[in-house]
Amino acid sequence: MSTQSISPDSPLAIARELAGRFARTAVARDQAGGTPKAERDALRDSGLLGLIIPREFGGLGESWSTTLQIVRELARVDSSVAHVFAFQHLLLATAQLFGQPDQWQPWFEQTVRERWFWGNALNPLDTRTLATPDGDAYRFHGDKSFCSGATDSDMLLASALRAGEGGLLIAVIPTKRDGVHIRQDWDNIGQRQTDSGSARFEQVRVAPDELLLQPGPLSTPRACLRPLLAQLILTNIYLGIAEGALAEARRYTLEQRRLWPASLATTANKDPYTLLHYGEFQAALEGARLLADHAGQQLDAAWQQGDALDEAGRGQLALQIAAAKVHASRSGLDLTSRIFDVTGARATSAALRLDRFWRNLRVHSLHDPLDYKLQELGDWALNGQYPTPSFYS
Amino acid sequence: MSTQSISPDSPLAIARELAGRFARTAVARDQAGGTPKAERDALRDSGLLGLIIPREFGGLGESWSTTLQIVRELARVDSSVAHVFAFQHLLLATAQLFGQPDQWQPWFEQTVRERWFWGNALNPLDTRTLATPDGDAYRFHGDKSFCSGATDSDMLLASALRAGEGGLLIAVIPTKRDGVHIRQDWDNIGQRQTDSGSARFEQVRVAPDELLLQPGPLSTPRACLRPLLAQLILTNIYLGIAEGALAEARRYTLEQRRLWPASLATTANKDPYTLLHYGEFQAALEGARLLADHAGQQLDAAWQQGDALDEAGRGQLALQIAAAKVHASRSGLDLTSRIFDVTGARATSAALRLDRFWRNLRVHSLHDPLDYKLQELGDWALNGQYPTPSFYS
Amino acid sequence: MSTQSISPDSPLAIARELAGRFARTAVARDQAGGTPKAERDALRDSGLLGLIIPREFGGLGESWSTTLQIVRELARVDSSVAHVFAFQHLLLATAQLFGQPDQWQPWFEQTVRERWFWGNALNPLDTRTLATPDGDAYRFHGDKSFCSGATDSDMLLASALRAGEGGLLIAVIPTKRDGVHIRQDWDNIGQRQTDSGSARFEQVRVAPDELLLQPGPLSTPRACLRPLLAQLILTNIYLGIAEGALAEARRYTLEQRRLWPASLATTANKDPYTLLHYGEFQAALEGARLLADHAGQQLDAAWQQGDALDEAGRGQLALQIAAAKVHASRSGLDLTSRIFDVTGARATSAALRLDRFWRNLRVHSLHDPLDYKLQELGDWALNGQYPTPSFYS
Amino acid sequence: MSTQSISPDSPLAIARELAGRFARTAVARDQAGGTPKAERDALRDSGLLGLIIPREFGGLGESWSTTLQIVRELARVDSSVAHVFAFQHLLLATAQLFGQPDQWQPWFEQTVRERWFWGNALNPLDTRTLATPDGDAYRFHGDKSFCSGATDSDMLLASALRAGEGGLLIAVIPTKRDGVHIRQDWDNIGQRQTDSGSARFEQVRVAPDELLLQPGPLSTPRACLRPLLAQLILTNIYLGIAEGALAEARRYTLEQRRLWPASLATTANKDPYTLLHYGEFQAALEGARLLADHAGQQLDAAWQQGDALDEAGRGQLALQIAAAKVHASRSGLDLTSRIFDVTGARATSAALRLDRFWRNLRVHSLHDPLDYKLQELGDWALNGQYPTPSFYS
Repeated sequence: MSTQSISPDSPLAIARELAGRFARTAVARDQAGGTPKAERDALRDSGLLGLIIPREFGGLGESWSTTLQIVRELARVDSSVAHVFAFQHLLLATAQLFGQPDQWQPWFEQTVRERWFWGNALNPLDTRTLATPDGDAYRFHGDKSFCSGATDSDMLLASALRAGEGGLLIAVIPTKRDGVHIRQDWDNIGQRQTDSGSARFEQVRVAPDELLLQPGPLSTPRACLRPLLAQLILTNIYLGIAEGALAEARRYTLEQRRLWPASLATTANKDPYTLLHYGEFQAALEGARLLADHAGQQLDAAWQQGDALDEAGRGQLALQIAAAKVHASRSGLDLTSRIFDVTGARATSAALRLDRFWRNLRVHSLHDPLDYKLQELGDWALNGQYPTPSFYS
Repeated sequence: MSTQSISPDSPLAIARELAGRFARTAVARDQAGGTPKAERDALRDSGLLGLIIPREFGGLGESWSTTLQIVRELARVDSSVAHVFAFQHLLLATAQLFGQPDQWQPWFEQTVRERWFWGNALNPLDTRTLATPDGDAYRFHGDKSFCSGATDSDMLLASALRAGEGGLLIAVIPTKRDGVHIRQDWDNIGQRQTDSGSARFEQVRVAPDELLLQPGPLSTPRACLRPLLAQLILTNIYLGIAEGALAEARRYTLEQRRLWPASLATTANKDPYTLLHYGEFQAALEGARLLADHAGQQLDAAWQQGDALDEAGRGQLALQIAAAKVHASRSGLDLTSRIFDVTGARATSAALRLDRFWRNLRVHSLHDPLDYKLQELGDWALNGQYPTPSFYS
Repeated sequence: MSTQSISPDSPLAIARELAGRFARTAVARDQAGGTPKAERDALRDSGLLGLIIPREFGGLGESWSTTLQIVRELARVDSSVAHVFAFQHLLLATAQLFGQPDQWQPWFEQTVRERWFWGNALNPLDTRTLATPDGDAYRFHGDKSFCSGATDSDMLLASALRAGEGGLLIAVIPTKRDGVHIRQDWDNIGQRQTDSGSARFEQVRVAPDELLLQPGPLSTPRACLRPLLAQLILTNIYLGIAEGALAEARRYTLEQRRLWPASLATTANKDPYTLLHYGEFQAALEGARLLADHAGQQLDAAWQQGDALDEAGRGQLALQIAAAKVHASRSGLDLTSRIFDVTGARATSAALRLDRFWRNLRVHSLHDPLDYKLQELGDWALNGQYPTPSFYS
Repeated sequence: MSTQSISPDSPLAIARELAGRFARTAVARDQAGGTPKAERDALRDSGLLGLIIPREFGGLGESWSTTLQIVRELARVDSSVAHVFAFQHLLLATAQLFGQPDQWQPWFEQTVRERWFWGNALNPLDTRTLATPDGDAYRFHGDKSFCSGATDSDMLLASALRAGEGGLLIAVIPTKRDGVHIRQDWDNIGQRQTDSGSARFEQVRVAPDELLLQPGPLSTPRACLRPLLAQLILTNIYLGIAEGALAEARRYTLEQRRLWPASLATTANKDPYTLLHYGEFQAALEGARLLADHAGQQLDAAWQQGDALDEAGRGQLALQIAAAKVHASRSGLDLTSRIFDVTGARATSAALRLDRFWRNLRVHSLHDPLDYKLQELGDWALNGQYPTPSFYS
């Protein structure tokens, strides 16, 4: 609930300035769908794509806490842009956690220098893309769904199953590599400008040094930070969406809401039931915020531990993030639906598109089932069992 | 949960046939918005616009129970069409309850004969339309919002405040009367084909015999059935929306849902958490259904009492309907948001527009605040006080 | 919400008179625990123990609907007495459904003539009592828990597993039969006067004609009505508890509740939040009531079908009862805890024991897990699967 | 979720040792009610009664954060003892916040030296005690309810209304002062050993230097920390109760819970629905814990600001504490009722008294209405209005 003064050229200040700009077109772009090209380029220009890249490689060297704060800031006004922006950093981190320094260090430098935007083609639940050996190299072939931010990306993090033997291979390749086809087929009810459609790989050549084999996916407690980072990104996006919805609802209630005839109050903004709803919003968001912020600090600490991070440390962090996600997801879904109870029927005008908050959160909160996140928390609470690391836990 | 055999030319059978047709274009029409002209004409052709009109005036002479059953049937596939269809009967009833037989009897006959579709311009919370005397007649002048079904209507139920002295005048006039302008300005996030936009009255002449003065609005317990009928219509539409959402979700889960890796089940349709969600849907809807059906039977009984209906009888019915509305509204909002938890991320494709159920219910459930409906129920439970009749109670 | 005039010597009138009497000592007896001997004898004297017994056997020949109505009536003031009273009829029905007319007809006659109170020793989840053959007869030996109403009973319905081969044997024996020991070991947090403690069978002889072998337990759709009746009894007890809690809360709020200083109301009984709570109580109970009543009518119909009842008919009834139970259980737990929010801190005086409603409902609602009741409802809603009959489904 | 190593003679270690001792008799004492004399004396012996007293006056000089941590620790096993222990510090703080150093400094020194236990007789909503001038002094006369911890106390914080003119006078007097009568009339359904009964003042003489007049009650932002401290104490007690309930439930589930026949799991501790419940407990408590801890740190900071604390600073803290209280209260009530769903029917044995957690929390959470706490949060979220300071805000 506090406001801190921030330096005007700090990343957070830059993000706020961008958020202000994105807000002006957010409603129109939610309707249009497609690729937010101007906004992606504004992010390229802002330098924020290198937020998490250490200063030695030309980046801003910010912490995950700060990065997530900025993700949330953007999500308040545009959760699609926030999503692809956040995944930029998730994908960079993936390279760092699963690969070798001589792989990711050049990528990091080039990302800053060339203002690369990274796109996602990892979805491990989609097993249609297969990798077959081709000398030292591999050929990736097949389809992949939910490739958020692949359109207009410069680099791609892609996965394939080893044909025959199984096992997931993850590669970093230029998006313009021969045989890579990004389809413009994302047209969903929410997160409409995330380009989370499908990609097609046609015998795409992947060189040995493009494969993240050492230490490899989910191989060590440190490598297993990757899904936790993904989960905490989702959490912060959910939270940002809810905060944005609350801000818009508040404005509408104050400016437009009419007093219901049976109310004991004399002005609509003092109606007891309206205050009750806002009180519940406030209480819920305050909890979700603290959990998200606390988890962010714990992530910073775990990140700094590096290979010293053990299973218990990783497990504790997983539980913190799971709790944060449960709160952000549930309170957000409740709030984004319930804001209409405090704004009233006239606020359903399509010109306002106040339903976009619910649509965005509803879509994004299906990334992986909340029921199983609760099951993991329960397995800890009852059996003292940490979540088994996976791409979703 | 039961299925009854129905005769193929019964109103319910006709409605089901229409619903089947409307279903095929419902997704496209939700996207397009505007007036469902073809569907409105199909309703005109079907004879169902005279559902509640007594046989002596050429109508089908059905009960409110049956009428509401048919409203719910339509709402399962298209809650916009269900809305304007239901309001046809609400508006006919308004004429009958507030006016004299020599007024409404000819209107009823002509409605059947001319296949009139009635539109709404009553909204008593919008006080911008004023009535000024003009000899025996009145002139209605000003704007009116939320005029559902006014577009493409033949007759209009319109209200105005008496200039100066106040007091609500309600009139029945042809929509094509000079000075009546129906705007095509409804573009909202849900109930997109209800044409619930605004009307403009430019010194519209209203003849004395077009005014519903005897017994007049909300004048007797019987006249006070009007808002109860409106509330029960809303209830049945909410319920129909929820039933429709459940049916679509079920189909998707059975056909498309994939088993989550951590599930103890061997097929997605036996996942414990998926079954839990469906169990909660089933329990909630079963309660809402019984309440709505029971209230419908009570309405039939109250209707038959006519002027013998007293305040207690009207009060009891109001409470039954309020309870039904609370259940239908809450369980429907929960279900239409939660269906995605049992269908998963891929079901958010815009091609399916599965969000339309939530959008439709969210918009329609804002007709009047649920908080105050609960307050009325509480005033009864604690203080033994019946709801004070109003256009919303 | 209605009140019907009833004849002063009708079973319902008798039950109300008894309830009025039981109410005077309910608080003290909740504290004392033990056997409600005076109340049990009052029930013996009232003739209500033969409520469901057909007139031809000397009983009152009432329907299940009426019987359950009376159970609910008693549960409003004393859910322990309501429980053992209801089980009287459940146990009579068990004999009738699982046994032969030449078995249960004499028992029915004697029950009326001798004013027998039946007790329960069936618990099929407790497998410690074994049955070993002894000529034509069997010997029951071992312990049995949750034997509600066995203390002070005249007849006992007892179960045992066939030693070696397995399979449940159910017998009807006099409680005073040699070797039957009813322990006075029920001391639980709720339902404190149900004597739901344990029994010990010491080589108890069970004659062949005391065994319910034809058609036997859960053998036919009709026989499978037994668990449904049990579930609907629970439902009505939950509902009665909630109604009793609401009545006491209402009295306290009206007489004792003070206005909170920040309230916009001028009297405590018009406080908006207090009315909101009562409104939610009212809406929830109204739903639970309709579901319970409707299920009762369906049970009457299924009962009358007798052996013509098929699996679908039994399945539909099971679903109706499951939905009713879910509502009664959940709304009751919520209400019995939340009444304190509308009465305030002073209502926690032990002299009032207003917590007994929650304690009673909490204990009784654990009879079998609600989660699995929801799972059954979900299996129907999603997969069209009827609940598999068992002693709990 | 973390465990920290603590020094064996730290206050927290001492508190844990005491908690371990209190736990052994907590069930019996919940049944008995009355004054926990042995436990009060153990607290006197432990030195913990001087926890918050600065070292310069002989106390332990701990922060509020630590003090509240210890309150929570005790509340896990015995929320009655935790309550009177916490109020010791609240009453000391009240003297410090409302009075002059030359008043409270000697009291602080004597509290440590004489091992004084302070009792409460402040309840400002009970206006029956009046103060009439008697020379320089006053006479307090009348009754006062909810005097937690007054029995067996050494010093009493008492309030009275100025006769005639009104206005609250607060005094610190020895409990053994002539005319002070503490009644043993607390017999409530929860918090049974808090002695929260009534006191009777019979013309009790109060000297001028015993009155807290400068700065006086709720006179400055700093003085207005008093109700916030009270609210945060409640919050930590609620949270401790919930944590204690969870710990007991867990033990029971692991040791005693049987697998339900229809479960897909092979052991009861892996049942999906059981894990879901535990997951929800874990998520909810984790949120409540963070909120309570964060509010504690904010309280420490505000405390250190002293008279520099302004209305905004006090307002922000009030909102943090309100949010924490809402979470602790709601999640605690849910958990303490729902633990039975994960333990089952046999866990309702009165020998375990597992209902005491719900009873204790239910009673204590009625201190002031949660609805109005939410209203305050809503007034902030919507109108940017800080809670108006009062003894409950």
